[in-house]
Amino acid sequence: MQQRLGVIDLGSNTTRLIIMSYRSHHSFRLLDEVRENVRLAEGIGEDGRLKQAPMDRAVATMRLYNRLCQSADVAEIIPVATSAAREATNGAEFLARVEREAGLTFRVLSTEEEAYYGYLGVANTLNLSDAFSIDIGGGSTQVAMIRGRRFIRSISQPIGALRLTDRFVKSDPISPKDFKALEQAAAERFADVDWLDQHGSSELAGIGGTIRTLADIDQKRRNYPIGLTHAYVFTREHLAETIDLLRGMTVHQREDVPGLNRDRADLILAGAVILHTVMKRGKFSQITVSGQGVREGLFYERFLAGEDPPLFADLRGFSIQNMARNFNYEAIHAAKVRDLSLSLFDQLTPLHGYGVWERELLGYAATLHDIGLAVGYYDHHRHGAYLIQSTALQGFSHREIALLALMVRYHRKGDVDTSELRMLLEDDDTQRVARLAALLRLSEFLERRKSQVVQSLRVEIGADVRVLARTSGDADIEIWDANRSTGLFRKSYGREMEIMAEKR
Amino acid sequence: MQQRLGVIDLGSNTTRLIIMSYRSHHSFRLLDEVRENVRLAEGIGEDGRLKQAPMDRAVATMRLYNRLCQSADVAEIIPVATSAAREATNGAEFLARVEREAGLTFRVLSTEEEAYYGYLGVANTLNLSDAFSIDIGGGSTQVAMIRGRRFIRSISQPIGALRLTDRFVKSDPISPKDFKALEQAAAERFADVDWLDQHGSSELAGIGGTIRTLADIDQKRRNYPIGLTHAYVFTREHLAETIDLLRGMTVHQREDVPGLNRDRADLILAGAVILHTVMKRGKFSQITVSGQGVREGLFYERFLAGEDPPLFADLRGFSIQNMARNFNYEAIHAAKVRDLSLSLFDQLTPLHGYGVWERELLGYAATLHDIGLAVGYYDHHRHGAYLIQSTALQGFSHREIALLALMVRYHRKGDVDTSELRMLLEDDDTQRVARLAALLRLSEFLERRKSQVVQSLRVEIGADVRVLARTSGDADIEIWDANRSTGLFRKSYGREMEIMAEKR
Repeated sequence: MQQRLGVIDLGSNTTRLIIMSYRSHHSFRLLDEVRENVRLAEGIGEDGRLKQAPMDRAVATMRLYNRLCQSADVAEIIPVATSAAREATNGAEFLARVEREAGLTFRVLSTEEEAYYGYLGVANTLNLSDAFSIDIGGGSTQVAMIRGRRFIRSISQPIGALRLTDRFVKSDPISPKDFKALEQAAAERFADVDWLDQHGSSELAGIGGTIRTLADIDQKRRNYPIGLTHAYVFTREHLAETIDLLRGMTVHQREDVPGLNRDRADLILAGAVILHTVMKRGKFSQITVSGQGVREGLFYERFLAGEDPPLFADLRGFSIQNMARNFNYEAIHAAKVRDLSLSLFDQLTPLHGYGVWERELLGYAATLHDIGLAVGYYDHHRHGAYLIQSTALQGFSHREIALLALMVRYHRKGDVDTSELRMLLEDDDTQRVARLAALLRLSEFLERRKSQVVQSLRVEIGADVRVLARTSGDADIEIWDANRSTGLFRKSYGREMEIMAEKR
Repeated sequence: MQQRLGVIDLGSNTTRLIIMSYRSHHSFRLLDEVRENVRLAEGIGEDGRLKQAPMDRAVATMRLYNRLCQSADVAEIIPVATSAAREATNGAEFLARVEREAGLTFRVLSTEEEAYYGYLGVANTLNLSDAFSIDIGGGSTQVAMIRGRRFIRSISQPIGALRLTDRFVKSDPISPKDFKALEQAAAERFADVDWLDQHGSSELAGIGGTIRTLADIDQKRRNYPIGLTHAYVFTREHLAETIDLLRGMTVHQREDVPGLNRDRADLILAGAVILHTVMKRGKFSQITVSGQGVREGLFYERFLAGEDPPLFADLRGFSIQNMARNFNYEAIHAAKVRDLSLSLFDQLTPLHGYGVWERELLGYAATLHDIGLAVGYYDHHRHGAYLIQSTALQGFSHREIALLALMVRYHRKGDVDTSELRMLLEDDDTQRVARLAALLRLSEFLERRKSQVVQSLRVEIGADVRVLARTSGDADIEIWDANRSTGLFRKSYGREMEIMAEKR
């Protein structure tokens, strides 16, 4: 049955609460998220003590978070604290006060644990095997090495966007001298982390608000056609350009930079420098943004309780199932459309020549093809596409998300037009969508009454293509509708198709 | 409890089946729609007999429709036939065959009844009081006079898109001589319908596929920003331009006209001429498209059983409720946000000077503000806007739909940007949206925990604006969040706002 879990992350700069509704090992969805810029580590000096004002802000915010969880019927709360509380000389005493006044007993994550949960968030969110993850916080930065989806090792350095800003940004805009010092301080921290080199072909995955914000800025500059930050990829070159742009601006001027959230305008530069330093150090030419991190890692440990490590065995498959379930899809109908689509795909391989990747995507599109009905009947193919390209599907690239959205968009009617999503696609993807959507469309109409009357299909490839349907009963409607829908097949495969019931 | 009704409309050109799921007097949604170009009246000659091939197509299609209804657990089917079956000398015999072979007992609508049910569809779908409605079918055209939302009188003429095409279109493209004859034949039919003149300021509402298609063509030409045909308005001048465009083209060339459905390419010109004739005759400078007609009229007679005439007493209010219910909104939370928004609106009248129209829209936006949660938590404000501008809300103009979508879009955060919908808006609507969304946003945060803790608001207007909240308990979160969200108010009203709990 459904449970509700709250995860609170008390960082040096921001604090966040997420509330998840879930059925263990089955499905989940985010119910609520609150973010507050407490800046707990603000003004920490040589004595390493948290200051009074930030502590008061934090206590007040935690009290509010706790009440929010109560009002939302959250059964369990997992509150964790990171570098600020971890390193402050008065951290323990501060957390004791939080427990007294806010009723929350915080767990202080070690640097290793912080890196581990960030890894869990990434490895359950992005489709990667050998990679590095970087999590830039307000007070510290964690880098982890991932091999075969497993956590190998990590390093944590006590430099974060807030801390470096406090220490090096003395003028507005920052002076060339201060900027140089900032770069050096960051570089020194990773100079002797040799294992960062040995990444061969590994990818870099980025966690945290700083990196998400840098992605938002990059998307705005490029007029990126969809609003998803998760799984967005941007290059080191672009990052360098963003840094050059920001370092010439005052904090106030930065507030007008599209994609840059006002309350990050002051810290973003230091954060960007840390990222650029690590990318240079590890010779990463690009970074893939993870929309999830430590908080979600803690959630997955609970959601996947019993798995060791708590990773989705089939990340992409789960992600599609989860979305379909969240929109109350008709499982039996979807499964039949999927079977018919894949049967056509396999038997038509001589014509399309596609492989396992396209087959996998076609199957996922079939599972999701009708979710748009949750919006409304008219144009539900458009609605389905909207839902897919508005959802941070775990384990898929933006190109794959675009392909899925377009297959669903054209699963009923229309000539394929991919122009709106061109920026996400490769040259031959328009034909790819047309050929795959054509099979999905035929299968959908062969399931017209959602009655599974068509049992199996036999394809005969000649000058034309004949499809013989073995049925469990009268399938006039289905055959009739399918034959009305062969236009996209004809256009995309260059052959006529005829569907008929198989004589018994 | 939920019921399912099927309505089948057997016309001279197309036949349609709609399946509605509904709870009488409470809510409904369209579950399925099938359309087939049977062209029953095709080739009717002097003898006035339906031809064999069209009758066979019709019988086969009706058999399929009946089975579709069975598979969809439809409890009741209402099958009606119009001009073709009504006028054909062998109509009765044909319908007897349909009953034998398709198991459907058709009711033949008189011309008066056909006009009446079209009126019911329009009067329950468009927000109009004194108007005329025109329904152009394949075989006949009905015009009805509406006064005070009531059906006054109607005329039906045996000219439709299919019939006139059969009779006058002898060449492709049509010859000037044939076109002239076509225009004359249409004009003669309405020459002596004097009551068409006396419309004063009445509007014209259009029903049927011909008029919807003409609207689609017009939208494509203008790059209209939303895909809704229902409630779309186009002018007589534009219609004349479309006619000039089409009469110069072959049927094959027309298939490339954006918005023109292939299977209407041949009949659209005759249909457009009929509409233009009636608009000239009645001096209508524009027409408002109704997405609903006879089929929905028959449904409303059932849905509103007991009302005489079966009209929604509060069309707009019902339409909003229906949408909110279809997306499982939280009624209590929405009602509280609505109360708070309207309380702010009323007390701030000296500053905004708005009236009942804006007040009504603000209330509706409050009712719908969270429906985007049905899509997902992140960006649910965007999702809500998408849902609203993708839904043919009954009783609202496209401008009003745009205003509602934009208020919901900005109910949580962001600076108001109306550029995407500019074509639907008036000059001062950007400020209107900003000022109304600002009130909605404050109310949403004053209901942060959805706990109705804020009972009432007292507004003090000075150099700044103070809002005193009477609460039923600790409302720290709500006051805190609301004060974080005063930016849009400051921008749109030019004053600071402070919210505080009222001392008891």
